[in-house]
Amino acid sequence: MAELKENVLMEKIVSLCKRRGFIYQSSEIYGGINGFWDYGPLGAELKRNVKELWWNTMTRQRDDVAGLEATIIMAPAIWKASGHVDTFSDPMVDCKTCKGRFRADQTNEIPCPQKPSKTVAECDGEKTAPRAFNLMFQTYVGPVQDASAIAYLRPETAQAIFVQFKNVLETSRQKVPFGIGQIGKAFRNEVTPRNYTFRSREFEQMELEFFIKPDEVVEAISGAVATPATKGHPGEPQPAWGWQLWHQYWVEERIKFYENIGLPRTTLEEYWQKPEELAHYARACVDILFKFPFGTQELEGIAARSDFDLSQHERFSGKPMGVFDEELRTAWAKLPKEKQDDLWRRYYENRKKYLVKMGVAEESAAKDATEDANGLAKGQYIPHVIEPSAGVDRLILALIANAYSEVTETDDKGKAATRVTLKFHPRVAPIKVGVMPLLKNKPDLVRTALEVRDRLRPWMNVFYDDAGSIGRRYARQDEAGTPFCVTIDFDTLGEKPELKDTVTVRHRDGGKQERLPIGELLGWLQARIR
Amino acid sequence: MAELKENVLMEKIVSLCKRRGFIYQSSEIYGGINGFWDYGPLGAELKRNVKELWWNTMTRQRDDVAGLEATIIMAPAIWKASGHVDTFSDPMVDCKTCKGRFRADQTNEIPCPQKPSKTVAECDGEKTAPRAFNLMFQTYVGPVQDASAIAYLRPETAQAIFVQFKNVLETSRQKVPFGIGQIGKAFRNEVTPRNYTFRSREFEQMELEFFIKPDEVVEAISGAVATPATKGHPGEPQPAWGWQLWHQYWVEERIKFYENIGLPRTTLEEYWQKPEELAHYARACVDILFKFPFGTQELEGIAARSDFDLSQHERFSGKPMGVFDEELRTAWAKLPKEKQDDLWRRYYENRKKYLVKMGVAEESAAKDATEDANGLAKGQYIPHVIEPSAGVDRLILALIANAYSEVTETDDKGKAATRVTLKFHPRVAPIKVGVMPLLKNKPDLVRTALEVRDRLRPWMNVFYDDAGSIGRRYARQDEAGTPFCVTIDFDTLGEKPELKDTVTVRHRDGGKQERLPIGELLGWLQARIR
Repeated sequence: MAELKENVLMEKIVSLCKRRGFIYQSSEIYGGINGFWDYGPLGAELKRNVKELWWNTMTRQRDDVAGLEATIIMAPAIWKASGHVDTFSDPMVDCKTCKGRFRADQTNEIPCPQKPSKTVAECDGEKTAPRAFNLMFQTYVGPVQDASAIAYLRPETAQAIFVQFKNVLETSRQKVPFGIGQIGKAFRNEVTPRNYTFRSREFEQMELEFFIKPDEVVEAISGAVATPATKGHPGEPQPAWGWQLWHQYWVEERIKFYENIGLPRTTLEEYWQKPEELAHYARACVDILFKFPFGTQELEGIAARSDFDLSQHERFSGKPMGVFDEELRTAWAKLPKEKQDDLWRRYYENRKKYLVKMGVAEESAAKDATEDANGLAKGQYIPHVIEPSAGVDRLILALIANAYSEVTETDDKGKAATRVTLKFHPRVAPIKVGVMPLLKNKPDLVRTALEVRDRLRPWMNVFYDDAGSIGRRYARQDEAGTPFCVTIDFDTLGEKPELKDTVTVRHRDGGKQERLPIGELLGWLQARIR
Repeated sequence: MAELKENVLMEKIVSLCKRRGFIYQSSEIYGGINGFWDYGPLGAELKRNVKELWWNTMTRQRDDVAGLEATIIMAPAIWKASGHVDTFSDPMVDCKTCKGRFRADQTNEIPCPQKPSKTVAECDGEKTAPRAFNLMFQTYVGPVQDASAIAYLRPETAQAIFVQFKNVLETSRQKVPFGIGQIGKAFRNEVTPRNYTFRSREFEQMELEFFIKPDEVVEAISGAVATPATKGHPGEPQPAWGWQLWHQYWVEERIKFYENIGLPRTTLEEYWQKPEELAHYARACVDILFKFPFGTQELEGIAARSDFDLSQHERFSGKPMGVFDEELRTAWAKLPKEKQDDLWRRYYENRKKYLVKMGVAEESAAKDATEDANGLAKGQYIPHVIEPSAGVDRLILALIANAYSEVTETDDKGKAATRVTLKFHPRVAPIKVGVMPLLKNKPDLVRTALEVRDRLRPWMNVFYDDAGSIGRRYARQDEAGTPFCVTIDFDTLGEKPELKDTVTVRHRDGGKQERLPIGELLGWLQARIR
């Protein structure tokens, strides 16, 4: 992590993450493995909370999204169709002297392994011409290691969703517009993993592919397509929405999600990619960026991918990926001839443009596009896609960076001590509440504290702690990001009769303490951690 | 899935799983990929519920277990230490005629690809001698594909826990006895994946490694080791428990878990491996078996693995994997000399036996074992491990097989129809409640039904359905395994004033219907789905 040396905050975060069991280097006792990170007890809880909140928000809480959990290794033809086999690569040069392999666009930065005072570009070693190095991890499936057995670890979770689109459509009773959400691991053999867990070789994604009607279909059914320029379009999805409004809707939903788990709007930036930056199939793409200590970087990309993905899989698999829509068929039959011709022509042009771009010969493309456009009258079309695609690991890092807070206090003897607090939103905090008897050696305090623990535990992650002074125990929970601590003291046992069966609840943020009856504790906490 | 053809129940399950979106073949539109399966919307929910219940039961609800989430690709030296590089293999023969590769122990069963009327053993093709084929998927990390870049997809999640044992110990405030739990994907390049999802190449594990004191340490501290023969040992963990009681404890805990998620005790079998069946490092192993339609097969193995794993990683990484225990140091100092000698000798013998078995020369082994046994007086030892290791995918299959139930009814016209119900325990059911307006075209019914849906949805997975007759909607939910359906009818709206704001709750099992006030619905359901 040499590139972080200058960044003091980042160093503190890395150190805290190791010390408190959020993140460890993978395989650390064997010297580690570059680009791979493990989550310790607190990190695993934080990550589970974030994934659970995404899954709830994006699938369970919506009628119009279904979930999927597909395999990491899939048929290799998928990566041919997606373009990953041919184009998912970095240009690399080999040095014939030191046998090293380097990113061609980084030879001016990377020091020569044999003469570190010079860069690879400056050293005497003879270099090969740049060659494409594919970033997919490759393996063999089955007992014979030949070309037919090659398979890849998925470099993204999205393709599994496209490939299973028809299965989900047919078995889930969804109708376009609807989405399929998935959370899972993906792998990229990055040449230079960097920025701690931000760019690693094994990572986790939370992706939604939201399938919508092409604008021509919306127009055929609704008479006109609502766009961001349309006055008075409400915030909730409407049948007349075209792809632009759907795209904008998902950008807003995703920003709301980040705000809901504790990233203030001011820490986020919205970046609308310029036309020349867009992938060839994309009509628009918005990056949601977070102000990391090492720079403002992408948390999530929300792309309008047209009908590129389903079309590619239709061509490569030979299986129809279109849908049938009775409403379209009925509406089409009622349209005036000029309208039909206009919509037909626009749909045809889009399809033909796509096919020609994919290398299909002009004549063939015209023929296929004609067939596609003729489908409209039969109620058939290929859905378009809006894709909000988020990285779990970089979100975890953003949450930790955003939560990090420290205060240096000087005691009576003039000794300075720095106290760290992780100000996680209670929704994502790994531990929701610390439960503590005031003293460890008073059986009545311990027994009552254990009762309180057992009352809360079925509903939330509780940490029971009886070791050390109360102040030190609070400090330990502050560092773990625990929003509340509950202390059982002699008043709980009835020393002051009016306080019997009440406990002290101490707030991590601000340190406020209040007294609550044990019976109200669960409801009080539940209202604050959800 | 030729081997299942004879099994009618299994065929029905496979068909239902596809039809209702529990399980699809991975990459199906590309002809599939042998040994890989995807979970559709209902399957993904079922799997999430099972994993969440394991995580809650095994980590969050316990003070003595911490969680971990490690990478799938780890340093390759780990698999050298674990023995997987050298011994995790099947013997294979190659046929020089057809170029096929076959499991050496299955040539009598597998038909010859060129003359299917004969088996591979019978055909004329010349075969090579059997050679070891490693079951780990291999890949390369980094840009250069040479021997130093070889890495493996983990064939089990357990090793990551051993490798991070010290990190977790030092950052989680746990003390032996304690456990580390992990859920995650693992990969085995099975030569013959079979029995649907039961034996697949990509699968998920839920593993606990529970670290305990060696019996000699227990004896030093507690004076004696409690064993299953000790009278009056209670069911809850005690300091005097030796490895046998801990092993038995976890067997019982795990069986309770399966019963709690709906597998009756009668569908399970406990199989205590015979001494000659045990892995060389294991002192005991119990398999928990489930009566699958294709035979009684393993769901989980609970092994007492001695101190083998931590010892191996200590030897291979050169990093100390032992712990320091103040209680042991204090207790040791107070022991009579004969007791010290006796415990020292037993600890020494165990350590030496392990080292010699691992190929360490007699003299070296004696020296190292002496050093290890000398550690006792300083409060140092290497913990032993009890490992309850469960497969998620086979558990999902067991839950579906156990839940499957069908009734064939003949209607007035003599037409027979078969209705399927999946009788999942509400805890694991993918959908907890179906919410239905009696009629779709009555706005008041729909509005109230949507209100009920929105009231329940933050707390559980709800399926809203307004299409078709109520009977058909119930049948669809029965097939999905939904335990309860709620119907909003005219009485809800006040047609019978005494029933205003009440709904019909219909039970999947038995079909009983009862009337409940909307205000009580959430609490009523929550009490039944947890």
